[in-house]
Amino acid sequence: MLLGLVDEEGHVLARERYLLGVQREPVQIVHELDSRLRYLAISAGLTWETVAGVGCSAAVMADVEKGIVLSAPNLLGPHRNVPFRDMLQAATGRPALIEMDAYAAALGEAWKGAGAGVDYFVYVVVGTGIGAGILMHGQVYRGWRGTAGEFGHTTIDPNGPLCNCGRYGCLEALAAGPAIALRAQGALLQGRRTIIAELAAGQEPNAEAVFEAARLGDQVAQEIVCQTAGYLGIGLANVLHLLNPQVIALGGGVIQGGADLLLDPIRRTVARQCGSWIDLEGTRIVLSTLGEDAGLLGVASLVWRSCEDQKP
Amino acid sequence: MLLGLVDEEGHVLARERYLLGVQREPVQIVHELDSRLRYLAISAGLTWETVAGVGCSAAVMADVEKGIVLSAPNLLGPHRNVPFRDMLQAATGRPALIEMDAYAAALGEAWKGAGAGVDYFVYVVVGTGIGAGILMHGQVYRGWRGTAGEFGHTTIDPNGPLCNCGRYGCLEALAAGPAIALRAQGALLQGRRTIIAELAAGQEPNAEAVFEAARLGDQVAQEIVCQTAGYLGIGLANVLHLLNPQVIALGGGVIQGGADLLLDPIRRTVARQCGSWIDLEGTRIVLSTLGEDAGLLGVASLVWRSCEDQKP
Repeated sequence: MLLGLVDEEGHVLARERYLLGVQREPVQIVHELDSRLRYLAISAGLTWETVAGVGCSAAVMADVEKGIVLSAPNLLGPHRNVPFRDMLQAATGRPALIEMDAYAAALGEAWKGAGAGVDYFVYVVVGTGIGAGILMHGQVYRGWRGTAGEFGHTTIDPNGPLCNCGRYGCLEALAAGPAIALRAQGALLQGRRTIIAELAAGQEPNAEAVFEAARLGDQVAQEIVCQTAGYLGIGLANVLHLLNPQVIALGGGVIQGGADLLLDPIRRTVARQCGSWIDLEGTRIVLSTLGEDAGLLGVASLVWRSCEDQKP
Repeated sequence: MLLGLVDEEGHVLARERYLLGVQREPVQIVHELDSRLRYLAISAGLTWETVAGVGCSAAVMADVEKGIVLSAPNLLGPHRNVPFRDMLQAATGRPALIEMDAYAAALGEAWKGAGAGVDYFVYVVVGTGIGAGILMHGQVYRGWRGTAGEFGHTTIDPNGPLCNCGRYGCLEALAAGPAIALRAQGALLQGRRTIIAELAAGQEPNAEAVFEAARLGDQVAQEIVCQTAGYLGIGLANVLHLLNPQVIALGGGVIQGGADLLLDPIRRTVARQCGSWIDLEGTRIVLSTLGEDAGLLGVASLVWRSCEDQKP
């Protein structure tokens, strides 16, 4: 978890990163959050009363309006329909809100990052999974059930590999971190000549080892990078065709780890997939500028926005 | 062209269908529209002064706010950047507006058809081309340059056939009318046993002949229908994942001609592509209920909405 105190201008006054314990009872998570936040405030010389509100972004499916976490296998285990916002509010004694991670990161980038001043903005996170937050004039496009932005499960190649959702050729199965690792493992199993195994140093090779090998000129690794960028480019071109955003910002672990290798070929693929047909002149594909702070700033922006709304 | 007079409640009081002449000078098109509209009004017993406004929907790329048709190869030939709205306004003496066809049809369905009362609605037209109109609380999602909804040029299969946009495996190259016809022609060239050629009666076989043959039990035709529905299903599942609409309505010539054959397999594919992973329970894929009137009612709704906005 990344905790932070963010002021009205978007400055991060204090931050703390910690590993959530294995205990996954919602009430315990909430109390740990509360005590760590209070400690963080005191350390920063702030009294708890000056805290305007508490925002929480997480990899969950949520009914944001009702403040209910519908499901969150990574965070809450089997617990479903947890009234997380109200629990957080009761524990902290401050107004609270929750937001889904890709949307929160999109809001953060729109407030202080790559999406500032952009009316049609899409934030794409490529990490263990792939998701997107779609903003329109600063508002999240949520869709009917609040699940819009499931970019990772759009089909890129119907003949592609099996995805963990049970279908074939989802973008996530082609270009997320585990897909990159799987392709490296496949190359090793085929006995191809590559330094990926050496760089993984006895571990199963991961995306990071692939990127490192590619930088050192390893051909197998460069092929994997090229394929990954190609699939991401096709997926992003589909987003461009459907949503015509002005800016798409890329973030998440895979992008942070391999931006120097991925960004240019992604841009070339998108240009090829969109070029000449429709006028996309000027649509920019950029890196997230906030990195891991994006979600933190996103929920902070929502807290400050709700304070603004409540002013007389 | 389909002309119509539509009252405030969405009743079509009069209509006329006519073939635009080969002459494609914008000023001549506008004058023909004006005189035919006036004639239509008189025939319906209405004086021109009771006409609140004129709306025009067409297969164009347009800057709707400025009322400028940027390009429209089918309508205006090589003419670009035509101030069509102002020309229409000057000729008719009434407030005028223009809208792009897929958006207009979406607005029509949202006013009086399959999208009535639906907050997140997508209208998909499958005809000679494939496009979409995305609505959010009754407002068109246009995107930055107003090109959102280019659904036909999303990639469904990177190894698929060449599209007229120069790329491979666009939905349009897999499932629009000409793609269906091409697949039939391919089967004939391969010498496959099918009645499609007989039904086409000496013409190049088209989608209609394929649908007719499929209804009569022709196996080749049924295969083509099945493939077409499969590709449309994958494309629609991608839309569902990205946009999470409550209702997707299908219209256009291919759907109107083959709904009895296409709709069920489309729904099955979408269910398979989305099932179990995210909660799509209740998301409906339906037929357009307005058919060719959708665009007419769409621009009429805009005219009446703008009258409403101007009331004190």
